[in-house]
Amino acid sequence: MAQIYDDQTKEINSEMPVLRNDRFLKALFREPVDKTPVWLMRQAGRYLPEYREVRSEAGDFMSLCKNPKLACEVTLQPLRRYELDAAILFSDILTIPDAMGQGLYFVEGEGPKFRKVIRTGKDVEKIPDVNISRDLTYVTDAVSLIRRELDGSVPLIGFAGSPWTLATYMIEGGSSKDFREAKQFLYNHPTDMHLLLEKLTVVIVDYLNAQITAGAQAVQIFDTWGGLLTSAAYQEFSLKYMRKIIKKLRRQSEGRAVPVIIFTKGGGQWLELQAEAGATALGLDWSTEIGRARGRVGTKVALQGNLDPSILYATEEVIRSEIGSILSSFGAGEGHIFNLGHGITPGVPPENVGIFVEAVHELSAQYHDENT
Amino acid sequence: MAQIYDDQTKEINSEMPVLRNDRFLKALFREPVDKTPVWLMRQAGRYLPEYREVRSEAGDFMSLCKNPKLACEVTLQPLRRYELDAAILFSDILTIPDAMGQGLYFVEGEGPKFRKVIRTGKDVEKIPDVNISRDLTYVTDAVSLIRRELDGSVPLIGFAGSPWTLATYMIEGGSSKDFREAKQFLYNHPTDMHLLLEKLTVVIVDYLNAQITAGAQAVQIFDTWGGLLTSAAYQEFSLKYMRKIIKKLRRQSEGRAVPVIIFTKGGGQWLELQAEAGATALGLDWSTEIGRARGRVGTKVALQGNLDPSILYATEEVIRSEIGSILSSFGAGEGHIFNLGHGITPGVPPENVGIFVEAVHELSAQYHDENT
Repeated sequence: MAQIYDDQTKEINSEMPVLRNDRFLKALFREPVDKTPVWLMRQAGRYLPEYREVRSEAGDFMSLCKNPKLACEVTLQPLRRYELDAAILFSDILTIPDAMGQGLYFVEGEGPKFRKVIRTGKDVEKIPDVNISRDLTYVTDAVSLIRRELDGSVPLIGFAGSPWTLATYMIEGGSSKDFREAKQFLYNHPTDMHLLLEKLTVVIVDYLNAQITAGAQAVQIFDTWGGLLTSAAYQEFSLKYMRKIIKKLRRQSEGRAVPVIIFTKGGGQWLELQAEAGATALGLDWSTEIGRARGRVGTKVALQGNLDPSILYATEEVIRSEIGSILSSFGAGEGHIFNLGHGITPGVPPENVGIFVEAVHELSAQYHDENT
Repeated sequence: MAQIYDDQTKEINSEMPVLRNDRFLKALFREPVDKTPVWLMRQAGRYLPEYREVRSEAGDFMSLCKNPKLACEVTLQPLRRYELDAAILFSDILTIPDAMGQGLYFVEGEGPKFRKVIRTGKDVEKIPDVNISRDLTYVTDAVSLIRRELDGSVPLIGFAGSPWTLATYMIEGGSSKDFREAKQFLYNHPTDMHLLLEKLTVVIVDYLNAQITAGAQAVQIFDTWGGLLTSAAYQEFSLKYMRKIIKKLRRQSEGRAVPVIIFTKGGGQWLELQAEAGATALGLDWSTEIGRARGRVGTKVALQGNLDPSILYATEEVIRSEIGSILSSFGAGEGHIFNLGHGITPGVPPENVGIFVEAVHELSAQYHDENT
């Protein structure tokens, strides 16, 4: 294989192989495709025995994220099993708070924790600057390596958490049930909250642009906890910052447009607002009927989603029938990227993912022009 | 005090005192009121030190629910502190699965658990019949006692969980993160699921009607987990059964109409469907903008809600400002019952509830005709 990037600049060079499957990128721009493209959020993950093997080799979860070779390996694992139309960088949204010195660690069965928490404006001011090419090279190195290994088979998606979502973890010190601390901070100290979100926004822009420069062909912003806000707070404390990020992203790379997907879990009531944020596509969780969503956003954005991940525990017949319903709800025409409505869960039988991917391709052909 | 009910029939007799504050009932029927009525979901609860005292006397949580005198006492506690416009029976939605012999118990800090779980159609068939006047008299006794003690001050709300919500606990064996078992049961065994929901529906109808007969002047159906479903599954497995219940409820008692409120947490995308279910009012969680909701449901139903409960941790200024936003979003005119968008959480300072209740009354007067 030719050397495909220059170690000095981490820029993809002109020897990059031609992309052989561009269904995913085409659908994002609402261009004709033969079948609806499909990938799964968290497709590189614990439901795969080969992932669990690499994971136990690596030791803890962050050691796996921080090792570009292993991150590349687990990114590619699902692509060896299934005819997925995109790869997504294996990493975690909490790499940024980690790089901010918050002391990220994982407790088995309890999720992420931080040794430091943000509770005052002073805490926000003290957050050190993050320099991507110094603090997060393990991510850009992984991106470059994955691009090389993908060798033009499918496009690679980079990602980051939304500022609001990252802020919740930094304030709560981990996951939360009711986001009491994060919301108290937001309501009682809105200026400090905006400062925190602004700091995160600056880093996320650099981070995603570095991923694009290293070879990511699309990026997704995960706003996992935006749906926990009121409509007004969502607009002021989450969507506004995603809009800022989108504006500053490098939207052209390797002679192609770089699409951006935003996904606010629980944000189905605010699709019209999201459609104005400058993103190429919106992720939908399963509570939103995709046909109605399409009616609401028109041709402003493509839509990604939205099978309930728990349906992957059901029988083949049910999986196929539910996929059929979503495809029929979206209807004929372009602008649909099939996915789950949230990340795949660890207990899903790997064979059901195969059924899922095949069914999307098979059942979607009728909704596209066969000559494309 | 005159004896206000006949022990034989548990029917309220004609000596029932006149209701002195009927703001809540009037607003439900979109009749003019002087101020927007207000109550809080879980207003009798752990945030009150006097509740915690009675609770520790009672022993475990279910012993408190099963003791009508103590249930009455904790129901009345918040009314002694705040000018609430309604009382709600202190009880739990899981009294029905408990009466079905599922072996309910509570583990401190972990929530409800069941010794038995439903995993097959056989398990559903084996569920014993529930006879309200034999198995759940502690609830109707509490209702009668509370009505007597309220002595016409404010109306009393009775309640039940929705069939789908109760089914999730019975299948999962307690609370759940992803409702994997309940959804697998739903998708792989829809006929058995419908049988379970049908059984629950029959009991819930009897249960709510018994509460109405014992003195409940309004009832609310809590569909806490309906929002976890897809739009199609929500309609088929949750809303359909709430509609069935509403049809069979006793809608007249003591010469008054008995209003019904349905509340699907996370159900903001389906308000139009909910508005057709026959309920008097819809509960809204805080993710829905109440003014937009009003536009969507028109005059079909009243709306109840919807302050984010975490705002009760904020400063007086913030609490008042957020209440002001909701009142202004709903706008002038009738059909609004103020509430939280979900139950109050245990850590809220009791004085903030006072600020909340006063602010609703004070700030809402301008939206109502002063002559009413």
